[in-house]
Amino acid sequence: MAEHLVTFDILPTPVHVPTGTLLVEAAQLAGVDVMQPCGGQGRCGRCTVLVTSGAVRRRSTLRLSQEDIAEGYALACQSVIEGDVSISIPPQEKIERRLTTDRTVAEVEVPADYDPNRVQTVRRVNLMLTPPSLEDQTDDWSRLQIAFRQQLGISELTCSLPILRKLGSILREEDWRISAILDAPTWDDAEVRARLIDLKPGHALLYEPLWGAAIDIGTTTVTLWLVDLVSGRVHSQVAEYNGQISRGEDVISRIIYAGKNGGGDQMRNLVLDTINALLETACKRTQITSHEVVKATIAGNSTMIHLLLGIPATSIRLAPFITAVNHMPLLVAREVGININPEANIDCLPGVASYVGADISAGVFSSGMNETEKLTLFLDVGTNGETVLGSREWLVTCACSAGPAFEGAGVLYGMRATKGAIEEVWINSDTFEPTYRVIGGVKPRGICGSGLISLLSEMFLTGVVDKAGNVNSNLKSERVHEGEHGPEYTLVWGQDSADGRDIAITRVDIDNLLRAKAAIYAGFTILADSVGIPLEAVEEVLIGGSFGKYINVEKAVQIGLLPDMPWERFKFLGNTSVRGAYYALLDREAREQIREIASRMTYIELSADNSFYDAFMSAMFLPHTDLSRFPSVEAAVNKS
Amino acid sequence: MAEHLVTFDILPTPVHVPTGTLLVEAAQLAGVDVMQPCGGQGRCGRCTVLVTSGAVRRRSTLRLSQEDIAEGYALACQSVIEGDVSISIPPQEKIERRLTTDRTVAEVEVPADYDPNRVQTVRRVNLMLTPPSLEDQTDDWSRLQIAFRQQLGISELTCSLPILRKLGSILREEDWRISAILDAPTWDDAEVRARLIDLKPGHALLYEPLWGAAIDIGTTTVTLWLVDLVSGRVHSQVAEYNGQISRGEDVISRIIYAGKNGGGDQMRNLVLDTINALLETACKRTQITSHEVVKATIAGNSTMIHLLLGIPATSIRLAPFITAVNHMPLLVAREVGININPEANIDCLPGVASYVGADISAGVFSSGMNETEKLTLFLDVGTNGETVLGSREWLVTCACSAGPAFEGAGVLYGMRATKGAIEEVWINSDTFEPTYRVIGGVKPRGICGSGLISLLSEMFLTGVVDKAGNVNSNLKSERVHEGEHGPEYTLVWGQDSADGRDIAITRVDIDNLLRAKAAIYAGFTILADSVGIPLEAVEEVLIGGSFGKYINVEKAVQIGLLPDMPWERFKFLGNTSVRGAYYALLDREAREQIREIASRMTYIELSADNSFYDAFMSAMFLPHTDLSRFPSVEAAVNKS
Repeated sequence: MAEHLVTFDILPTPVHVPTGTLLVEAAQLAGVDVMQPCGGQGRCGRCTVLVTSGAVRRRSTLRLSQEDIAEGYALACQSVIEGDVSISIPPQEKIERRLTTDRTVAEVEVPADYDPNRVQTVRRVNLMLTPPSLEDQTDDWSRLQIAFRQQLGISELTCSLPILRKLGSILREEDWRISAILDAPTWDDAEVRARLIDLKPGHALLYEPLWGAAIDIGTTTVTLWLVDLVSGRVHSQVAEYNGQISRGEDVISRIIYAGKNGGGDQMRNLVLDTINALLETACKRTQITSHEVVKATIAGNSTMIHLLLGIPATSIRLAPFITAVNHMPLLVAREVGININPEANIDCLPGVASYVGADISAGVFSSGMNETEKLTLFLDVGTNGETVLGSREWLVTCACSAGPAFEGAGVLYGMRATKGAIEEVWINSDTFEPTYRVIGGVKPRGICGSGLISLLSEMFLTGVVDKAGNVNSNLKSERVHEGEHGPEYTLVWGQDSADGRDIAITRVDIDNLLRAKAAIYAGFTILADSVGIPLEAVEEVLIGGSFGKYINVEKAVQIGLLPDMPWERFKFLGNTSVRGAYYALLDREAREQIREIASRMTYIELSADNSFYDAFMSAMFLPHTDLSRFPSVEAAVNKS
Repeated sequence: MAEHLVTFDILPTPVHVPTGTLLVEAAQLAGVDVMQPCGGQGRCGRCTVLVTSGAVRRRSTLRLSQEDIAEGYALACQSVIEGDVSISIPPQEKIERRLTTDRTVAEVEVPADYDPNRVQTVRRVNLMLTPPSLEDQTDDWSRLQIAFRQQLGISELTCSLPILRKLGSILREEDWRISAILDAPTWDDAEVRARLIDLKPGHALLYEPLWGAAIDIGTTTVTLWLVDLVSGRVHSQVAEYNGQISRGEDVISRIIYAGKNGGGDQMRNLVLDTINALLETACKRTQITSHEVVKATIAGNSTMIHLLLGIPATSIRLAPFITAVNHMPLLVAREVGININPEANIDCLPGVASYVGADISAGVFSSGMNETEKLTLFLDVGTNGETVLGSREWLVTCACSAGPAFEGAGVLYGMRATKGAIEEVWINSDTFEPTYRVIGGVKPRGICGSGLISLLSEMFLTGVVDKAGNVNSNLKSERVHEGEHGPEYTLVWGQDSADGRDIAITRVDIDNLLRAKAAIYAGFTILADSVGIPLEAVEEVLIGGSFGKYINVEKAVQIGLLPDMPWERFKFLGNTSVRGAYYALLDREAREQIREIASRMTYIELSADNSFYDAFMSAMFLPHTDLSRFPSVEAAVNKS
């Protein structure tokens, strides 16, 4: 097979590849990191490169204009090398961080009645063994087991081979005085079955902290709380973008990427790198070593948990949308690859079904809706939109494939909520001139989720778009004009933007946003219909997810993303998933309740629901075909 | 620190080492394999090299004569490099193999009542699962667990992360038809708790063999039987020298070597290499892949089991002689490093205390002495001499540090029972001229264990040595003459030997042999004394160990190694240890009995027994100070 030279402008020497190699593969070979947020499907356009000499065969040019192609732009994930080529990599936008933890971290309150002796599975104990002699040649391990039985009532003690390997020297180092860290499912029963997590020579201070980590693996953000299991106190809260983002923005793209040859290992290592870096930061801040962390609980959606453990997630994506494992067995840090004490238990919290994962089981628990009498709607607005309806009597749930439109993907000038993102918009209803607020107070580079909701709402209320989302091309404003995909509205002129380009919203963008909000709202109605309750009967709307915190409820209602009800019924809970993981980390009874929630929740598969399509299509309008569902919006429209 | 050049005659380029490096370390650095049977203690002389230029500092010259030193010979393990040196490696004797398996392998009989459905822990099952649908989105793992519960009554199914990783694709490959291999402690209880060892798409033939391995790790020889767990039949028997021999002939040397920096890992890898090579041979012979082996049981002395698992054995060697673990937890092939199915259970059989290990628990079980009414003496003659006295009522045991004299170490012309070894000797009582038989019918190179017993007995009966082992220097034979260490007896003149050197036995050799046989015999007497029974009351003497097979009972009694009793009371059982491992592999009840034997056997620590020294000193004569204990020998001496 013929070989070709691929030269990258940023590298001194070319690479050799055979005919048929994708540009993105050649880039990987050369060690050039090309972003692939859509997972190499040619959908997002983020992997665009410039072919400066030679030619490639373009399998897809979606996301590229005729001008782009004429200029030599190509999608690296869709372009096949058939001869020598020279490639120029456009400077990738550097994503600056604007994560919740960069703002003031909210102090987490330790549950008032937290009693580690009653509910914590991990304990530290000190022991003094009788040394062996010629009269008592009991082997070390039996001696330890007997002491644990006699002194602590532990009927079954287990440990791993690595601990047996160091047993003899630890026992002898401080004259048969040792301290041990144990993990037992329960300490109450007559038969306590404990696993030895750590063993140290000499006695330890028993009220010294014992460290644990509560982790939430979000599709976008990974959050970690470092917790003292003795006091229950959270010592560090850290968060970071999930390293998998560079291989796909949403779970679908990630599943597709992971399904490629070697993709699963890459995904696993990317998120492990993120977690381990967070651990390092948190431990450094608390001045401990990461090996002092002796237990971890992990929440996250089903795909995130599967990819963390290297379990293929392919079947989640394809009908009938089956997860490999909802209730993971207890694992050990060593086998998972998380850099804490290698013997520490890793407890992946249980998920419900397909896209409704442990983040929702944990979220429902930490929201308290499983204990309330009020009819409650719980909504985790993240890259996916999972929704739960119910109370302590019953719980129904569904997952809307909302897509990542509200996180800036699928929208031409969409971006994440980082510096330079427009986060709120107002449009003058007479002049149609906008004003806006930019994160960081700099020149804008694009529009983030809350900005898009705000923009769509304003365009609707001022008549820039009609209820079907069509841009009014008869509008007396030079901001409305014909673009590649029909009429569009220019929010920022090039002279005011960071890179000199206009920032506009197109018909395609609006369609993607409508689809996303319609999917979420249709989910609400299907859940309510499934139990024969009108949506208006909901007494409380609990919104989890860090994105949720930035939603302007008024605007979200105006576009029909959230149901129209008095604002005091809405509560923003922040990251309910990591909070649930934290409760499970502290309290085996909380852990058991999360298991019970995951088991008893009724999952409604929207794609199997005949009424979903109708509900979705009805919600594809601003705010809805049935305006009577949105009385406050009706009033606002009539007023304007 | 100064650096020096060390040049080896067999290598093209020298190596650089700092001052103070041992010659043996320099050899390892250069990749030259120098034998260290005594574990680098300077005792065996096998690592002798010739310093052809430069000088080394000799920390010890034990085993070297003044002439040797003058000629430049040095012990590599005891010589410190302090300047540039050139080293010549004398051609090491190539040990040719003469293992039991090279002779005809005895057919092993399957226990007559073997019923795998009743006593085997491993089972193969076929299952047909209901495929998932939009109406039933149960996750794969729960679906499997439910099917196992409903179709097979398995209440608790566990598996490892690697199996969860391939679960989804295996279930789907043959339309939700699978075959599984399971291991459960018992299949009888209402609560069957099974571990998933293997999972394959499609249905398997249920009466196809299921493979297991029974392994005995001897200090000298590792033996492996490949067994079909369904029929119980042994398909291959293979054996090989334990790769650790190159780092020490006896357990003491091995413990010392393993205690050095990196020595434990070396020891572990050496024996793993041996086991894995045996597996490859056995599997090739049976035309299966080693991953089809789904269970293994392992017997061996405590040190061998510790070193296999990388558990330090240091405390076994030093008073009060404590093992780290007698009853090993069930391990998995993956963590042990044995190349069978990575999920297969590795069951290390339990030991009793210090040097009395699983080889003895397994040996006692397979000898049947734990079920007999006869007072039985069980003796495993290997590199160590472990002895058990008792019947089904009680069992007492001790370990004699006999040392490896009968395996040829500690004897100037001693060697293992390979080609060129003298295995039997006769001395003419008039001329004192010997005749002998050599293994392989070639010119002799040395004397193996059975040859040494034979030689000692003949020398004693013909008066070449007296009862104290002194060579009669007044003997009218040119074969007796003064050597480096006093008078010695030349068995083979240089003209008749393989390498042109005389083969003689020295006073030091005789002392070492006396010490070895005295230790074993003293063990017998201490055991008998401990229960207040005269040794003569023993009704049966069972001799295990492959070396045991070659002992000439008459000669062994004549030197006082074995007690003097009618020959029909002696039975040679061969390798009782691997046979015990085989029974444990087949039958969980046999396994439980071995555990019970290990737990109930009373261990007598000879070094803590005040009468041991007296018993030992009394046995340091030929055959014993108390000739009345050896009536048949008394008669023979009087006759000659």
